[in-house]
Amino acid sequence: MRYHKIPDETIRRLPVYLRGLLFLSEEGYKSVSSQKLADFLGLNAWQIRKDFSYFGAFGTPGVGYKIDKLVKQVKKILKLDVLKKAALVGVGNLGSAVLAYPGFGIYDFRVAAAFDNDPKKIGRKIENITIEDTSKLQTLKKRKISLAIIAVPRDSAQKTADALVKAGVKGILNFSPCHITVPKKVKVITIDIAMDLARLPYYIPTR
Amino acid sequence: MRYHKIPDETIRRLPVYLRGLLFLSEEGYKSVSSQKLADFLGLNAWQIRKDFSYFGAFGTPGVGYKIDKLVKQVKKILKLDVLKKAALVGVGNLGSAVLAYPGFGIYDFRVAAAFDNDPKKIGRKIENITIEDTSKLQTLKKRKISLAIIAVPRDSAQKTADALVKAGVKGILNFSPCHITVPKKVKVITIDIAMDLARLPYYIPTR
Repeated sequence: MRYHKIPDETIRRLPVYLRGLLFLSEEGYKSVSSQKLADFLGLNAWQIRKDFSYFGAFGTPGVGYKIDKLVKQVKKILKLDVLKKAALVGVGNLGSAVLAYPGFGIYDFRVAAAFDNDPKKIGRKIENITIEDTSKLQTLKKRKISLAIIAVPRDSAQKTADALVKAGVKGILNFSPCHITVPKKVKVITIDIAMDLARLPYYIPTR
Repeated sequence: MRYHKIPDETIRRLPVYLRGLLFLSEEGYKSVSSQKLADFLGLNAWQIRKDFSYFGAFGTPGVGYKIDKLVKQVKKILKLDVLKKAALVGVGNLGSAVLAYPGFGIYDFRVAAAFDNDPKKIGRKIENITIEDTSKLQTLKKRKISLAIIAVPRDSAQKTADALVKAGVKGILNFSPCHITVPKKVKVITIDIAMDLARLPYYIPTR
């Protein structure tokens, strides 16, 4: 089955729904209505129903969605059932925070390799991951790691991206506040902390 | 002038456009077409025109948008012309990375205060900011800092949010991978690294 027409904005919301669903499941819920999920997440019930309908998930009137089934469907759409490992490049403050990040587990994700070019860091272990020399990025192909997180200084971001692409990486989460250029077949998601902070004031009454 | 109807998704994109516009301005451009801006950012020209039209910015056919004017308009919409200071709570790996983050400048933002409850950190200076005791959060009101960044461990996130709200903070950027509850008048933007990583596999061909 192929899902051609899911809008990017829906894909952006699916992990949010997934987090909510997993939380409700942990709390003992077996099913949930779009309204309850919306209230819990501070989102819109109509939007949730529409987003889920893109991949054929429809709730039962009066009952809602079966949580376990929906979780499986969402994970499958997001391909979280097959792609589970990411490599981290750059183990400075931000990279260390990523390694220690407690939030990956719920998505079945883990950082499976970490690289740095600082000889003082190479060989050290953080969170059970031994830091490797960045010159070893080529090994990612053999290790079937096709996702990577870039947390290097801005000046090295493009060079790092080039090396990752060469190593067969297909998806990059970029934390450097700069534009990186990659071939079209490679997907880049940039997390720019400043950009997220920049849309906060809009919502603040200033008088 | 009030702008009532700008959709959240447009507000989400405005900082992206702003970054592109500022970059092009630095490169010496005085004006830019929606198509050129779209190509540069990897976005959609039609979407850009629509987003700008929400606040009455229309390009001139054959010329495009005057960059300086547009930058001013976007900053005004986002209220970046009045709200420029944020406080950071939690100076661990992630907080230190935030303090050293080079990307705030282009939005005229700066982290103006940093707090931690570790006695070993209090009084230390990072990036010219002296770390203060978290018990001093109340001083934010007098210092007119109404934005804050939460980078504390998950367990302390809600307590920190409560203290910030009490200190008059109106907007929170939350880095803890958890839901925090605040009064309706307070805006929270959560950055969940795992959530961003979780939407990456969708775009990766798996066979």
